[in-house]
Amino acid sequence: MDANDYIYGVRAVIEAIEADKDIDKILVRKDLQSDLVNDMLQMARERHLLVQRVPIEKINRITQKNHQGVVALLASVTYTRVGELVPMLYEEGVLPFVIVLDGITDVRNFGAIARTAECCGANALVIPERGSVSAGGDAMKTSAGALNYIQVCRERNLVSAVKYLKDNGYQIVGVTEKANFNYTQGTYDTPVALVMGAEDVGISPEILALCDTRVSIPMFGKIGSLNVSVAAGVMMYEVVRQRLASDLEVI
Amino acid sequence: MDANDYIYGVRAVIEAIEADKDIDKILVRKDLQSDLVNDMLQMARERHLLVQRVPIEKINRITQKNHQGVVALLASVTYTRVGELVPMLYEEGVLPFVIVLDGITDVRNFGAIARTAECCGANALVIPERGSVSAGGDAMKTSAGALNYIQVCRERNLVSAVKYLKDNGYQIVGVTEKANFNYTQGTYDTPVALVMGAEDVGISPEILALCDTRVSIPMFGKIGSLNVSVAAGVMMYEVVRQRLASDLEVI
Repeated sequence: MDANDYIYGVRAVIEAIEADKDIDKILVRKDLQSDLVNDMLQMARERHLLVQRVPIEKINRITQKNHQGVVALLASVTYTRVGELVPMLYEEGVLPFVIVLDGITDVRNFGAIARTAECCGANALVIPERGSVSAGGDAMKTSAGALNYIQVCRERNLVSAVKYLKDNGYQIVGVTEKANFNYTQGTYDTPVALVMGAEDVGISPEILALCDTRVSIPMFGKIGSLNVSVAAGVMMYEVVRQRLASDLEVI
Repeated sequence: MDANDYIYGVRAVIEAIEADKDIDKILVRKDLQSDLVNDMLQMARERHLLVQRVPIEKINRITQKNHQGVVALLASVTYTRVGELVPMLYEEGVLPFVIVLDGITDVRNFGAIARTAECCGANALVIPERGSVSAGGDAMKTSAGALNYIQVCRERNLVSAVKYLKDNGYQIVGVTEKANFNYTQGTYDTPVALVMGAEDVGISPEILALCDTRVSIPMFGKIGSLNVSVAAGVMMYEVVRQRLASDLEVI
């Protein structure tokens, strides 16, 4: 991690919060307590910043400097929320296409998906706050800079975010090996939220239940599953293919 | 590198050659000469094994043991050649689909492409001997084991190999950002050799000149290029999509 990816020490982190720096999350030593720390936690809460209590070893791995048990990791991107994104896309008059990543943990996969999403004209990525990669420096690098150009919504509750998209007329499309509906047979001329699941366990049951369309990519070999960034690419470009074929706007 | 991925010492390497072990390549210290070494080189030549003269430091990085200036790296797969593959596929009566990798150097990209190729029912990968990844342990791992199930042709001269495929009725399809023919507009109901270029420079001019069809994947963002394993996936599944739509055999 580069030194400019984080800020350490209680007072420095308070200053960063006050300066509205883009903070990915704040790590606080498990048992740390003081009036100043409480002030910081209060400020973080007001601004809906993610705070995690962690063992001191975790902070020591990030920096050996005098961190006083507090480190703020800076985001490479400014996160937004679906609650802001959806009205914005509506006003822009585009045919929305967002990619929901339900627990992707490999930063190279995340970067490659962000890159494909940017290339194919998707409007945004939606990721959960916890149990997922975040848009830090490594993700930026593996995305070939795509994270500079595509919006990232980070949601405390991914299920609610997907529900919100569904309530707003988005077709929720889940790619899952369990489906026996070929992905090319879906119709993607509506607003689409494409859900890709975690590398190991796939899409979580709650989100799978919200999917309007469950599709799979056909497999003819013995391995039986694609790398998730490849699967996402195949799926995203099928949406593009159909929209181009129907003379729909892609971007 | 695991210790069981290589064999060191002149006599041990000679034994490995005699035992027909699957040898990826033999590294020999630049200025090493002896009758025994000459015997080994002669045997390697007869069996068309790849021998590289390298500085001693390169061998030392692989093993600190008493290597005597000779290390044979073992292949995780048994390589074949297009000259054997093409008649074999013809006899099997399948509609051939092979993936030619013109200088892919990132082992994770190679692994992901091998995995996708296996999943989508492609028959083989074709790689050059030099200036490319080879199918060693790391590639096997990132391919999720796909390299156990898909054939890999390794060619001394990739241009000749592509020419051979072309002469045998394969449509040579090159994916290149320079083409302005959308990849979905090609027709892939013939035997297909899909060429993917190196991460940095793309397809080499000699091979591009052999392509019957040059296609590009449309880009709508600012980045302007996909990760090569994603691009390969998008392209491979377009071939599958068309063949399934035409009721052609995929595997």
